[in-house]
Amino acid sequence: MDLQGAFHVYDTTLRDGMQQEGLNPTVADKLAIARQLDELGVGFIEGGWPGANPKDTEFFRRAATELDLKHAKLAAFGATRRAGVRAADDPLVAALRDSGAPVVTLVAKSHDRHVELALRTTLEENLAMVRDTVAHLTAEGQRVFLDAEHFFDGYRDNRAYALEVLRTAFEAGAEVAALCDTNGGMLPSWVADVVADVHANALGSGVGRVGIHCHNDTGCAVANTLAAVDAGATHVQGTINGYGERTGNADLISVVANLELKLDRQVLPQGLLREATRIAHGIAEVTNVPPASRQPYVGTSAFAHKAGLHASAIKVDPMLYQHMDPMGVGNDMRLLVSDMAGRASIELKGKELGFDLSGDKGLLTAITDKVKELESRGFTFEAADASFELLLVEMVEGRRPSYFEVESWRVITETQPDGHDATCEATVKLHAEGERFVVVGEGNGPVNALDHALRQAIGQAYPEVAKFELIDFKVRILDQGHGTDAITRVLIETTDGASSWVTVGVGPNIIEASWQALTDSVTYGLRKHHQR
Amino acid sequence: MDLQGAFHVYDTTLRDGMQQEGLNPTVADKLAIARQLDELGVGFIEGGWPGANPKDTEFFRRAATELDLKHAKLAAFGATRRAGVRAADDPLVAALRDSGAPVVTLVAKSHDRHVELALRTTLEENLAMVRDTVAHLTAEGQRVFLDAEHFFDGYRDNRAYALEVLRTAFEAGAEVAALCDTNGGMLPSWVADVVADVHANALGSGVGRVGIHCHNDTGCAVANTLAAVDAGATHVQGTINGYGERTGNADLISVVANLELKLDRQVLPQGLLREATRIAHGIAEVTNVPPASRQPYVGTSAFAHKAGLHASAIKVDPMLYQHMDPMGVGNDMRLLVSDMAGRASIELKGKELGFDLSGDKGLLTAITDKVKELESRGFTFEAADASFELLLVEMVEGRRPSYFEVESWRVITETQPDGHDATCEATVKLHAEGERFVVVGEGNGPVNALDHALRQAIGQAYPEVAKFELIDFKVRILDQGHGTDAITRVLIETTDGASSWVTVGVGPNIIEASWQALTDSVTYGLRKHHQR
Repeated sequence: MDLQGAFHVYDTTLRDGMQQEGLNPTVADKLAIARQLDELGVGFIEGGWPGANPKDTEFFRRAATELDLKHAKLAAFGATRRAGVRAADDPLVAALRDSGAPVVTLVAKSHDRHVELALRTTLEENLAMVRDTVAHLTAEGQRVFLDAEHFFDGYRDNRAYALEVLRTAFEAGAEVAALCDTNGGMLPSWVADVVADVHANALGSGVGRVGIHCHNDTGCAVANTLAAVDAGATHVQGTINGYGERTGNADLISVVANLELKLDRQVLPQGLLREATRIAHGIAEVTNVPPASRQPYVGTSAFAHKAGLHASAIKVDPMLYQHMDPMGVGNDMRLLVSDMAGRASIELKGKELGFDLSGDKGLLTAITDKVKELESRGFTFEAADASFELLLVEMVEGRRPSYFEVESWRVITETQPDGHDATCEATVKLHAEGERFVVVGEGNGPVNALDHALRQAIGQAYPEVAKFELIDFKVRILDQGHGTDAITRVLIETTDGASSWVTVGVGPNIIEASWQALTDSVTYGLRKHHQR
Repeated sequence: MDLQGAFHVYDTTLRDGMQQEGLNPTVADKLAIARQLDELGVGFIEGGWPGANPKDTEFFRRAATELDLKHAKLAAFGATRRAGVRAADDPLVAALRDSGAPVVTLVAKSHDRHVELALRTTLEENLAMVRDTVAHLTAEGQRVFLDAEHFFDGYRDNRAYALEVLRTAFEAGAEVAALCDTNGGMLPSWVADVVADVHANALGSGVGRVGIHCHNDTGCAVANTLAAVDAGATHVQGTINGYGERTGNADLISVVANLELKLDRQVLPQGLLREATRIAHGIAEVTNVPPASRQPYVGTSAFAHKAGLHASAIKVDPMLYQHMDPMGVGNDMRLLVSDMAGRASIELKGKELGFDLSGDKGLLTAITDKVKELESRGFTFEAADASFELLLVEMVEGRRPSYFEVESWRVITETQPDGHDATCEATVKLHAEGERFVVVGEGNGPVNALDHALRQAIGQAYPEVAKFELIDFKVRILDQGHGTDAITRVLIETTDGASSWVTVGVGPNIIEASWQALTDSVTYGLRKHHQR
């Protein structure tokens, strides 16, 4: 498949995506992300702005030896030459030339007011800057793409000039002119009209291609991108997980999934879209931004169903209740055990976890009744898959998996007169592998102290517990109207580095509910490791 | 403005939105959200499914006396009658009739395969079910809207039948047929074509209106909704913050903002869109789902700029770098790291609480800076009016209101060997009205025990504290991804029987954060009583 020819999937996660508030990746992070982007099969990876940003210069330097890209070409991003200098003499242009990237993406002003107010030069000089820089870099052997910044706003203010910028770039040898909705205010029908006009009036001899670069400020970044493709664009820019400034860039995976699965346009190498969920989550691990569960296609909730009434119909034909087969993007259908839980959905859920309950109606009824009883007391198994699995094992095998026995625990939180911060100290006494452990843990909160004491105690019997890390802790007060006297539900998410699981605890005492979820979490993790 | 006539903004946060994984609101939560939706000025609030869900039955019962809606009409959601019974005899239809809601939204199957596989009845009987139920409820004096479930998929499989369902509903007296993309797989151009066909071929005499209900599975829910409006739909359904199953429903605020600010269609009462940011965040406080910072229009990052190069151009004309004035949705442009509070909003908020800050720019700046600093540490004053008022008083009068002085506190939570339930005991030492009080309180959780000890101690000096009751306690873990080690934010709601107030506490220790909120709560209540 000719990824750099027929249709361009151009990823700018490493450049525009990293403009997102709070993102500040290291060079190693960027190299790791580039490898994952290549596994997804994108045609181009925009790595950063060499020359303007020392980290990005370093990225291109290391990429030359450390990256072995199978599918993608690297693109270096940078600006047209400064006003009043020769392109060959501009050190920032030199940095692009010297980056070693086979492609240079030049950002150019195409909005007359930006030329005057931000660049502080003339409209003519801006055209010369585009012409000279494109010509210089193509003469030096690089492929040149143009990012026409603020193109849509510029088109509205001064259509003739905006189109002239594109024509100038094409005539000087640019392969692509990507129309950027930099401020993100466009809607799909507007994008379609402008792209069509550009095709008719800026392409000249027909050499060159039109690209699209959208932001999500109106909630339409994906649809705007599709509208541009429908109007003839053959180069789409976007970022993984929609990272980017403000509301983010177009989510490249949604764009590609829509193109491939909805519009039958193959734009990645065959089969690689099935890596999308894994890669989206893998990149989130590197950026350390928790993945959005509701993200289209790859979110953990994207194919989750509250089964209830529909469970029997889902059994007949799951496609009645999903818009596509989640395997197409490497995701999975999940059935949530909700308070509408019927036997059919428990049966399906059991199957998902590897328990065939279909043959034993009595057991299925017993489990369903137990789940209903627990849910009426405030438990939720929708989010707490791990606690549900422990419950299933308990009901199927007759006893709950157990690796340790708790004798007692205590946690003290106190302030001292004059002391500003309260301190927490937890004592846990438990038996495991035939020994008794008495351990004290400190923490900056009571659950943190208990977690430390518990894992330190169990870790003496089972060293693998050292790998477990508590990564999320959610508290919900049920039964509003009863204040601190109400029922508390605690959800805890734990990871062992490879995967993560959620457990639940419920009770009037927030510490005790947390304790339940903590012990379930360790039990589930130990069971998982012992099963390997 | 005729909110129930000209154009329908129909909110389904309380029904379809609550299908989101993990959401399980109490009746009080739903009433609180309904009040906020009414402040936004939506025309219709779908409250739930009375009869099918006891909590929703209760919601409509309490709404009749406890909600005083200025703009919105309540809609009860429910299904057409069961196969083979008279509409008048179906207890679920009776529950809709008896809900007291002026509008009933009936969900009906419009996809032939769903009729056969999920409803397990004939296509003819399904039409009769639509006809009878609509006719029965309109005869009983309710306005009836139809949600045509799986409409777009049904239209593809059997266009004639899908259209026949709509015609049947209109002929029986339905006012609206909302076309539901239940599985969420549509793209804008497809939606536009179908809506146009429905207008041409299902409206019959032209009575009735076409509505649209989208899910975000392709990342196009907002664009799909706009495409439907462009094709003639005059009823849009959606949820606040895009809550909903899987990838969520169309984000109603993005839809409305695009209609009003981009397409010049006034669909909310004049000026109310400016409440959107406050309301979106207020509802997130109730659902306890952290707001998405990149959410279009209302996200905290939606108008945030890494200023850098552009700072001077932004000073010349901020509109060069934003697609609209953020004030239009009650949001703010942010440069660099500063958090949400601008001086204008602090001034407004002060005015709301009876403090005229307009004359003292220095004080206003000092308060704004203080709020920003506290917000950067995790405080939120959007929901915690009482803590904000205490802060204002402190800044205006030079000292924080104080009725007691805490010497120290301690809380112990422990289990005994063989004992099932943990016990909590709190000791509070404080000075009030010239005396020292040392009091021990028990509780079934640590905050409950502290609350008891604190109020018992203060109550000896100020007997009115006996009337204070803690009615809600919310905990949110900020900075997700750090487990029990992260920053905790506690919101506490207290009532004195006549009114209620919310206070906030923040810190790495959940008990200490709760203690801050508890002491603020008692202080605020005492101040209120002493002012009378």
